[in-house]
Amino acid sequence: MEKHYDYEEKVSEESHNFDFNAYMRAKTKAVNLALDKAVPLQHPEKIREAMRYSLLAGGKRVRPALCIAACELVGGDEKTAMPAACAMEMMHTMSLIHDDLPCMDNDNLRRGKPTNHKVYGEDTAVLAGDALISFSFEHIALATKGVAADRVLRVIAHLGKAIGSEGLVAGQIVDIASEGDSNVGLDTLEYVHIHKTAVLLESSVVSGAILGGANEDEIDRLRQYARYIGLLFQVVDDILDVTKSSAELGKTAGKDLVTNKATYPKLLGLERSIEFAQNLTAKAKEQLTIFDKLKAAPLLGLADYIANRQN
Amino acid sequence: MEKHYDYEEKVSEESHNFDFNAYMRAKTKAVNLALDKAVPLQHPEKIREAMRYSLLAGGKRVRPALCIAACELVGGDEKTAMPAACAMEMMHTMSLIHDDLPCMDNDNLRRGKPTNHKVYGEDTAVLAGDALISFSFEHIALATKGVAADRVLRVIAHLGKAIGSEGLVAGQIVDIASEGDSNVGLDTLEYVHIHKTAVLLESSVVSGAILGGANEDEIDRLRQYARYIGLLFQVVDDILDVTKSSAELGKTAGKDLVTNKATYPKLLGLERSIEFAQNLTAKAKEQLTIFDKLKAAPLLGLADYIANRQN
Repeated sequence: MEKHYDYEEKVSEESHNFDFNAYMRAKTKAVNLALDKAVPLQHPEKIREAMRYSLLAGGKRVRPALCIAACELVGGDEKTAMPAACAMEMMHTMSLIHDDLPCMDNDNLRRGKPTNHKVYGEDTAVLAGDALISFSFEHIALATKGVAADRVLRVIAHLGKAIGSEGLVAGQIVDIASEGDSNVGLDTLEYVHIHKTAVLLESSVVSGAILGGANEDEIDRLRQYARYIGLLFQVVDDILDVTKSSAELGKTAGKDLVTNKATYPKLLGLERSIEFAQNLTAKAKEQLTIFDKLKAAPLLGLADYIANRQN
Repeated sequence: MEKHYDYEEKVSEESHNFDFNAYMRAKTKAVNLALDKAVPLQHPEKIREAMRYSLLAGGKRVRPALCIAACELVGGDEKTAMPAACAMEMMHTMSLIHDDLPCMDNDNLRRGKPTNHKVYGEDTAVLAGDALISFSFEHIALATKGVAADRVLRVIAHLGKAIGSEGLVAGQIVDIASEGDSNVGLDTLEYVHIHKTAVLLESSVVSGAILGGANEDEIDRLRQYARYIGLLFQVVDDILDVTKSSAELGKTAGKDLVTNKATYPKLLGLERSIEFAQNLTAKAKEQLTIFDKLKAAPLLGLADYIANRQN
């Protein structure tokens, strides 16, 4: 009986002391290893080098962490989620490479390094993005083990929708169309943010949940959680763009102001944008109350991490 | 008994008189309808318009026809193969849109119309291609009916490999690297052709076979068939480039000569290139001898069609 109490106390203590930074370090390390292994350097080297350059440039690996954490939360393990987790990061990287192209946002700096096309040329940058999209699906289909094929297909369909003309691409096209348009309101801004950012975070979380064997109710809650942190992610991005330097961000800062882009600070003011972000964080966390608090600690931590990140 | 003979004679007559043109007309019509339905015009319109512009520009639909014909050959039906057949055409269209970009081949004319970026801008053309890649996988995963999920996953994995840095993208990157290089030999030329063209034809045929329930021996034979017609396709393309006008081709003719590109006519001469093409056609047809000749008529016809096409 005493032993039982000891155990309960230990669990409670662990829950309270959940070391989020250690969790993220461990997941980032595992994801980086898996990405390195998934895209080895092979003939033709130039395209592989270009893919690896951006893929292994040291991103925060938020999407893979979300995917793995959601899988673990519903009873799955890291290994089961890893191919999908890598695919989420490959898709994110692809969107950065293509968005940075001269014909799009024309950016020179990304994750503190010259953008892909600056190093490898525009042609290779376009092709590296194309290869990352198709490989993401191939990798989920081939490397996911121990999950029924219909669940894997569901993940692929979900990811496809998140990337294409109902997802990332839709967000980017509306974003480009609204550039320099001083009449852009909150509705359009939210549409762009949901499609450019939230859908891939949602896909990361939902895919992890599906692969981990979640029931539909759990998937629904996790989808809601992901939508809140997805919007949160972009609101924080907008706030950082006006409050941080390029060196701190590892990409061009103040760009939204220069390009006269609609942002939350511009439409709501900085104070209310910060309030909005806090509200979104609280709502995201609310969705996780159906789960055991200890098990939900990584996703609760990820919500705080996205809210409080400094770059 | 007489009735039985009548039937046999009719079958034999049909086999002999297989109307390839009618077959292709029927399949093209069905594929065009399916493509139109798969990518409806919806918000955001601009990206959908750009996707539909190139997708519905009246291509020959060789890849969808190969996919459906392979499925039917092994006992499947058109409906089962249609989502994959559409995906093959979407991938082909994507590769044309991206290859035509100013940073790649910089082409103004395709299928007799201005290229995608000429109409919609480079940014939208890049995004339309991205959306077509991801939608292809989504469409196969969601719209394929009546096939075990593990077979659908196999098709997705095969297609992923055909598009990425081991397929189309590899072909394009080596093609770009060897432009203007007067030392390019037959090995490199074959590598480019196999990767730029043959892999997607192979994926079309093999996917149709998998979805139709082919056994591994049948899949192997059909893979070989596809590799021969894939190389054939490109040899004929090279021949047409030096023997036809832009108006006849619906795209810029003589371009290979102007850009000093390695081609079969340049490396082998026109005569030996034509011989090589005839040889490939014969080898492709040989692979189909394990099948009933009547049932193989569409794929036999497609080999001739690719060999004898005039644009």
